[in-house]
Amino acid sequence: MEENAILHFPESKFCFALRPDEICLRLRISKNDFPDEIKVIYGGKYSYACERRTAEMQRAYEDRLFAYYTVTLNLTDLRFVYVFKITCGGKVYYFSEDGLTEKFDFELSYYNCFQYAYINSADVMPPVKWMNGAVFYQIFVERFNMGNTCKDKSYINLKWGEKPDPKSFAGGDIAGITQKLDYIKSLGVNALYLTPVFRSVSNHKYDISDYYEIDKSFGSNAELKELIDRAHGKGIKVVLDAVFNHCSEELKEFKDVKKNGRNSKYYDWFVVTKDEPFEYECFASCKYMPKFNTSNPEVTKFLIGIAEYWIKEYNIDGWRLDVSDEVSHDFWRAFRKAVKSLKADCVLIGENWHDANVYLRGEQFDSIMNYAFTKACLDFYAFGAYNAQDMACKLNEILMRNTDTVNDMMLNLLDSHDTHRFLTRVNGDVNKLMSALALTFFFRGAPCIYYGTENAMEGGYDPDCRRTFDWDEEKKDNPVKSLVKSLSALKLIPAFNGAEVKIYEKDGLLFAERGKYKLIINESEKAVKKPFDSVICCAEYKNGVLGCGGFAVVCG
Amino acid sequence: MEENAILHFPESKFCFALRPDEICLRLRISKNDFPDEIKVIYGGKYSYACERRTAEMQRAYEDRLFAYYTVTLNLTDLRFVYVFKITCGGKVYYFSEDGLTEKFDFELSYYNCFQYAYINSADVMPPVKWMNGAVFYQIFVERFNMGNTCKDKSYINLKWGEKPDPKSFAGGDIAGITQKLDYIKSLGVNALYLTPVFRSVSNHKYDISDYYEIDKSFGSNAELKELIDRAHGKGIKVVLDAVFNHCSEELKEFKDVKKNGRNSKYYDWFVVTKDEPFEYECFASCKYMPKFNTSNPEVTKFLIGIAEYWIKEYNIDGWRLDVSDEVSHDFWRAFRKAVKSLKADCVLIGENWHDANVYLRGEQFDSIMNYAFTKACLDFYAFGAYNAQDMACKLNEILMRNTDTVNDMMLNLLDSHDTHRFLTRVNGDVNKLMSALALTFFFRGAPCIYYGTENAMEGGYDPDCRRTFDWDEEKKDNPVKSLVKSLSALKLIPAFNGAEVKIYEKDGLLFAERGKYKLIINESEKAVKKPFDSVICCAEYKNGVLGCGGFAVVCG
Repeated sequence: MEENAILHFPESKFCFALRPDEICLRLRISKNDFPDEIKVIYGGKYSYACERRTAEMQRAYEDRLFAYYTVTLNLTDLRFVYVFKITCGGKVYYFSEDGLTEKFDFELSYYNCFQYAYINSADVMPPVKWMNGAVFYQIFVERFNMGNTCKDKSYINLKWGEKPDPKSFAGGDIAGITQKLDYIKSLGVNALYLTPVFRSVSNHKYDISDYYEIDKSFGSNAELKELIDRAHGKGIKVVLDAVFNHCSEELKEFKDVKKNGRNSKYYDWFVVTKDEPFEYECFASCKYMPKFNTSNPEVTKFLIGIAEYWIKEYNIDGWRLDVSDEVSHDFWRAFRKAVKSLKADCVLIGENWHDANVYLRGEQFDSIMNYAFTKACLDFYAFGAYNAQDMACKLNEILMRNTDTVNDMMLNLLDSHDTHRFLTRVNGDVNKLMSALALTFFFRGAPCIYYGTENAMEGGYDPDCRRTFDWDEEKKDNPVKSLVKSLSALKLIPAFNGAEVKIYEKDGLLFAERGKYKLIINESEKAVKKPFDSVICCAEYKNGVLGCGGFAVVCG
Repeated sequence: MEENAILHFPESKFCFALRPDEICLRLRISKNDFPDEIKVIYGGKYSYACERRTAEMQRAYEDRLFAYYTVTLNLTDLRFVYVFKITCGGKVYYFSEDGLTEKFDFELSYYNCFQYAYINSADVMPPVKWMNGAVFYQIFVERFNMGNTCKDKSYINLKWGEKPDPKSFAGGDIAGITQKLDYIKSLGVNALYLTPVFRSVSNHKYDISDYYEIDKSFGSNAELKELIDRAHGKGIKVVLDAVFNHCSEELKEFKDVKKNGRNSKYYDWFVVTKDEPFEYECFASCKYMPKFNTSNPEVTKFLIGIAEYWIKEYNIDGWRLDVSDEVSHDFWRAFRKAVKSLKADCVLIGENWHDANVYLRGEQFDSIMNYAFTKACLDFYAFGAYNAQDMACKLNEILMRNTDTVNDMMLNLLDSHDTHRFLTRVNGDVNKLMSALALTFFFRGAPCIYYGTENAMEGGYDPDCRRTFDWDEEKKDNPVKSLVKSLSALKLIPAFNGAEVKIYEKDGLLFAERGKYKLIINESEKAVKKPFDSVICCAEYKNGVLGCGGFAVVCG
């Protein structure tokens, strides 16, 4: 046994309750070790010395260095204690709080067994169930569709179809989305994530000056209500963008501070670092986006009030939390409490580009924008950094960052308004885009399609990734669009969506399995003979041969 | 490099803020690896691609398998991002979210560097500063001293000095403690932890029927007030025992449920599992201790109200939290908020016998009763399971379970009302007890002396560990008492108490260092020649030879 490699923490992603009486355990060991068996010896905290049960664990995931054994247990006593018993080369080891030992004294186990001392329901993270079947479509509102053609268009300075610059206004609005709900629905999408819609002078609206009003160029509050109601009528959820790290310098409370300095009653709403000349913390180095002081209870109340308002009055289905990693855990705990008590299945999706496990333990977010998945796809499809083996390892590693509950709510994306478009990263190779999309649908969580992807839309970094949607493409066939429809249809099948996900490499190919459904991806440099029976969708697959850059989704 | 061994998590015990602009990093590697150097390359989140600083890390702790490198950094930008650079055998490696790699692309680091994206002050755990200098004395109130000799003594069924059984009452009370404050003070003790004092039919009073009244046999609320005021007058803090996992079956709310079943307005205050016949969850299998349903907001309010009352009205200095590991994290978060907003330096000490890091991240407890330390001392002194090397490793491992902030608030104990007395575990070997006590004072955190230890009091498991205090010993000399006084005096010296703690093995001896002060322990089977200059206290040390079972506290 490579003892160095063994890792386990109780009450963590290594030991989490799915329900108060159902617990999932993971034990990490070296990938080089193949024990004869790994068992968990478990029982009730107060009866463990004399009464114990045993369950075998299965090798379920492998990343670059480690293998993860898992087991799910149904419990009668919620005061759960346990140690692992590893048999390797005929030798028996125990793994407890004292590490790997050859003996374990169950009489003194109250000192050094692992424990989840009582599984309180208040600590068990409930899944937002609709997330597991969700297919998201992210819309950068200003560039998707202009619905209200009668509005004052004087602010528009970009002709629809032309390339945007950072200050462009093309006229996209809320009514434009409402008008296209049938189109969106036709893709199989059942959830929208809209970039911010509240009053703001910018095109992206991440600098908000009034959190209670839809920006005039986007329409009215009533139009948002109509969009949400009609979307709900079609079975489509709507998630809005919560910009609570910072605001616009045009927010009235900030203007008051700017004007009155320490005499302003809002002085402590922001992080003023100097009175003369006036200096303050802001998002990145954008002085037009002053940072909120969320340690101030008044600010917490103000921001939570906003979150509650749009749930109560407009019945939105979730908040995507902008720059959520720079706002305090303390704030998000209060935020979650308030939101979930209003609407338990209102999803909270953080914008965290990194391993965000500290936010995903049940008392803060449900999910994050899974940019680690994005990066892995770039490394595999675009940068040539990963072969199929590397990719399988990386995806398993990403799955092991969080609990299964969280994994099923992850927002998996290839690109967004903050990145290059994926198709541009792969130099316009539509097969790679389609292959990556298929992988996004097979991965655990909710796929999120950035608007226009279905039409093979290209674009570099911001502002180029925020081009106007080409509605001439709406009626045209496009292989990406067909694929999205096929994959969305798959997400509706319980035998697909409810199944465990397995990701592995074999013969240089990347495999993703969900129940009887398989995705096979060939990003290697040679074609591989692979006769499949029932192909659902594919590229570069002919006569039983999966060509380079090809993929196939098969059943059975 | 043994890649398997490398471990780091941001925003954890591996990366924690001491203040918003001061951060401590730890990197775990294999103990077998001795890199040429380990550096952290750090910077601001939005400037990292072009502007970075570097700091060298030091090998600071070693446990059985691993070495821990640490560094403390002062920051100007609170949006802290970093990767580690390890030079080993002339080769350079980077350690990031992507693991160990030979290259690191700082341009794309927003995907895979480590980050503490913004150090919000609300997330930084403030130390309870007095804990670092505290010397605790735990009193099992029923057995310490009877102060009120005029009270109704009809409940007393044990003669002072005789051995108790589980139902014994010997007459100890609050006034008895107040009378002995000078004695307590003379030991150098500056903090009391009292087992429960509220109304209860048992001698231990962990089954409480009224949380607002001192049990009559212990005295009155006024007598507690007097104890606290007089203790404070002598610079002694008072920590009470909070039994919030369960109550007594005599609590009026529980009696109401027992009587009225589902018709009781308190039905949801407990965890009723069956109405007919009436069944409910309880502590362990003690039906006279019904478990509270802390998921019920009314119960939360009730219990927090109690905690607040004794702080507001009686100015207590802390709560020891009974069976805290079986109460929800959700409850403790609300509890901490309430307590700390009333009295920021009111310490919260959980009764968690295991690695309790999930409770010690800043939003729940400050500290726990450090039973892992207890167990290590048993393994070393009593069970023969550890030699000095094992012990040094174990103690370092325990230190690496939590942040330094928490380590400085740990309640380190050899025994309590819930264990055998340590002296009995070491078969009455007073030298071993004294050696272990010295170690307790040198370890990071607050030593806690169980009443009577200073008189070499013995006792097996409950009820024997709860014998009456022998006041005939008060005026007598006792080597343990002298030692406690010497060690308590050391705790007052900033050069001792403020210094880093280093624990290691050398020549078969266990060393604990705090600044210029050293504790040397010989639990080996041979005497060791060790000439020391300035010996503060010792046992089995003569003519420059530290005998078996001996120890010495030296300066310089």
